[in-house]
Amino acid sequence: MHPFIRVISLSLDKPSPSDKRADKERLLDGLRGTGIDLPVEIELEVLRKLPAYLREHDFYVTLSLGSMGDRYKVIDIGKPAPYAVAVDIGTTNMVASLFDLTKQERIGTDEQENPQISEGPDVLSRVHLSMSGKGGCLHSLLITGINELIGKLASRYDVSTKDIGVVVFAGNTIMTHFLLNLPVDAIAVENYIPVVNKPAFVSPHTIGISIHNQGIAYVFPNAGSYVGGDIISGIICSGGYKQKDPFIIVDVGTNAEIVLGCDEWIMVGAGAAGPALEKGIAEIGMRAGEGAICHVDISKDTDAVMIKTIGGGEPKGICGSGMIELISELYGSGIINQQGKFSGISGKIRDTDGRKEFVLYESAGTKLIISETDIENFLRSKAAMFASLYVMVKAVGLCFSDIARFYVSGALGSGIDTDKAVRIGFIPDIERSRFVALGNSSLAGAEMLLLNSTLLKDIEAVCAMITYREMNTDGEFMREFPAAMFIPHTNPEVLKC
Amino acid sequence: MHPFIRVISLSLDKPSPSDKRADKERLLDGLRGTGIDLPVEIELEVLRKLPAYLREHDFYVTLSLGSMGDRYKVIDIGKPAPYAVAVDIGTTNMVASLFDLTKQERIGTDEQENPQISEGPDVLSRVHLSMSGKGGCLHSLLITGINELIGKLASRYDVSTKDIGVVVFAGNTIMTHFLLNLPVDAIAVENYIPVVNKPAFVSPHTIGISIHNQGIAYVFPNAGSYVGGDIISGIICSGGYKQKDPFIIVDVGTNAEIVLGCDEWIMVGAGAAGPALEKGIAEIGMRAGEGAICHVDISKDTDAVMIKTIGGGEPKGICGSGMIELISELYGSGIINQQGKFSGISGKIRDTDGRKEFVLYESAGTKLIISETDIENFLRSKAAMFASLYVMVKAVGLCFSDIARFYVSGALGSGIDTDKAVRIGFIPDIERSRFVALGNSSLAGAEMLLLNSTLLKDIEAVCAMITYREMNTDGEFMREFPAAMFIPHTNPEVLKC
Repeated sequence: MHPFIRVISLSLDKPSPSDKRADKERLLDGLRGTGIDLPVEIELEVLRKLPAYLREHDFYVTLSLGSMGDRYKVIDIGKPAPYAVAVDIGTTNMVASLFDLTKQERIGTDEQENPQISEGPDVLSRVHLSMSGKGGCLHSLLITGINELIGKLASRYDVSTKDIGVVVFAGNTIMTHFLLNLPVDAIAVENYIPVVNKPAFVSPHTIGISIHNQGIAYVFPNAGSYVGGDIISGIICSGGYKQKDPFIIVDVGTNAEIVLGCDEWIMVGAGAAGPALEKGIAEIGMRAGEGAICHVDISKDTDAVMIKTIGGGEPKGICGSGMIELISELYGSGIINQQGKFSGISGKIRDTDGRKEFVLYESAGTKLIISETDIENFLRSKAAMFASLYVMVKAVGLCFSDIARFYVSGALGSGIDTDKAVRIGFIPDIERSRFVALGNSSLAGAEMLLLNSTLLKDIEAVCAMITYREMNTDGEFMREFPAAMFIPHTNPEVLKC
Repeated sequence: MHPFIRVISLSLDKPSPSDKRADKERLLDGLRGTGIDLPVEIELEVLRKLPAYLREHDFYVTLSLGSMGDRYKVIDIGKPAPYAVAVDIGTTNMVASLFDLTKQERIGTDEQENPQISEGPDVLSRVHLSMSGKGGCLHSLLITGINELIGKLASRYDVSTKDIGVVVFAGNTIMTHFLLNLPVDAIAVENYIPVVNKPAFVSPHTIGISIHNQGIAYVFPNAGSYVGGDIISGIICSGGYKQKDPFIIVDVGTNAEIVLGCDEWIMVGAGAAGPALEKGIAEIGMRAGEGAICHVDISKDTDAVMIKTIGGGEPKGICGSGMIELISELYGSGIINQQGKFSGISGKIRDTDGRKEFVLYESAGTKLIISETDIENFLRSKAAMFASLYVMVKAVGLCFSDIARFYVSGALGSGIDTDKAVRIGFIPDIERSRFVALGNSSLAGAEMLLLNSTLLKDIEAVCAMITYREMNTDGEFMREFPAAMFIPHTNPEVLKC
């Protein structure tokens, strides 16, 4: 393994009348002797401490070396600062993991709402805000939030943020731009051009991130406005880009992005999602958290609804995976028909002013209901997802049965019931063992990078392999979409390709 | 030529539905198209301006590209910042030249006393001060002085310091360490180890130098405690390292360092100088400036003394080149003997309390006299210089007649009368056309680098070629020194080798 920070101890030759090398060059020579074969940078702040340190420690030195791709950087001497943080900057939620890179293990994970939400609920509203001159404020909010998140996580595990030598960020293109305080104006208008695709390494302090003074920040590249660092990180996490056989990744977090590829090419399709599954679809939709319904079973015989919530307590709403199961069970038990309309007989269906609703849960204080409008919204998302999958797979001359691995990422991905999802045509009808749940693949890819800096080369390679296909303006997509609005499809054979 | 800053204008492809490259990558692709074949860095500060600039200028961009050896850096877009400064940081005096790199010409030069003088007159006193904890103050004094010098120079030629994209520094090892605020403790004690030999590129702002925000600072490397960046720069200036035939450089500024080498090896000898020629030798010694006697002729017949001063006004003292001529003329006219004692008859010799003195100049307000002690001090410097030269040339199996070029650098170097210097054995008796005056070679080397950044490779090569020979502890030197105290030498044949 090649963790992002290596802590190295070595005994240097001592100066003598025949060996008058300077301290820095003596240290660099010593490092080369341990197999460090790339250039090593040492900032003035570290150099200033070096002579006294070497002489106090009889030229035995312990230092932390941070990877920067084509070179290393001495983060510190004496105090190794071996901790590292991976951050997934979601539009809604930010998640961070703290690692001890000497032990090569994750210490803990924490999350926090993206504080930009106070200014605008989604990417588009924040971009418009930024274009009206509030970009700096959005940057500050984000940085403050990230520092809080990292600080909270570090303090919980009794780690000083000054001992964090590396932080890796993965986020969509807009979040990356806000992180770096880059203008997003050109991303929002025709041609949708980012300022930068490959920010790579930046000094944490130039963007306001509070870690070790000589720490390193790496920002995942994006492959255009719609293929962000979160997707690249997800591809890295899947490992699909190393396999000869085709793979698919669907990310059903905020936007339904689809990745199709193999070890020679990668196609990303996006822009076709309806509202995100976890919010905006159903009135009772919520993020996968405490109290969210994540599993639904409906008895064919008795209409009885069995639900499970995250955390096991009183349900507060329904998350993405719960929604898939709910629709699948409503359809399987005959309560809704192919069009998603309430056609069956159930004591749980109520008619309010001609609007039919299904009562999913009812207690003294809580009533969770699903309307036909909610179901239609869901079907629109499902149709967008499936039509995109179908168009992309066909475009490269493949069938669903050719897909060796079907990765499902996103908060939803951790708990998806593939049988139920296939039943409604949410995903194609392939061998179930080919489905792999990735969870938060954006975070997971960043975590993998912390533990293995040679993945920087993989990231470069992946970026070079990606082509982007916009679905919103794709004629083929438009033709396939209406058929996919049906449950499971107007032509169920299509699910098997 | 490859000036340190290149101003490039180019028309980039405009974004289109089939060309959605990010602004940064679009710019980098464009630069590659103009033949820029090394990696190019663009800092966030520049990236933040890029999208608006490109769209306001219809994707026609003018930028300044600074060389950083193995890569380039975009210093600015729109405002090219094509100015550059070379600074020689002398222990006594700092000299700076301002260049317009678009025109590849020097605009002007200015100098200023090194403000550290207020804390300690020489390197050693300042090192001791630094070891007692005042290093930060010495750093600040130096930086303030350099900023003043650059500011004064820029303002005289109506250039904003914010339009200075590059500054190159050459100074001895201690001055380089003070510049970078690095501790000098270990340089002052046994084994004499610097913190760094190759500082190379630093951000001007991290050391407090006020030029363009994204400007570049390059610091000449040293090849050990006694072979500073000023000597390396002088070697670059001479070009001797590129020639098959041996060359010598003597720098008689503050310390009499000697360089002997060719295109395969370079030997530097130092530490053997007596007091600097321009100060400390004679009571009337002074730096080569306004009012300093720089030429002396004494008539053999009439004892008449003819002097010339720098600036042509009333003499205030005598500089190094004047001192060489004075001793040479006193000897040539028989006023002093081989031992430097007043043995001849002259109306200008006065006897005060048994101490003999020579009246060089006398007017209503000024009386400039030379004592036998002054002459003895001078002869000690001369002997150190010549014995070093002799020992070094012999050590590599050469004769003085093998030396193809004999470069004389230092303020003294610009005006030395070689015949007079040879007559007293200050320099060897070789063909006069082989002597070349370099002037301030430390400044001149830095200036050459500004105009030709490919010299960075030469600097690397020169550093690798250098071996250092300490004269103070050299037995051979000790044996040769006494004979060289005579005028011209106990064995004048030795001058021709």
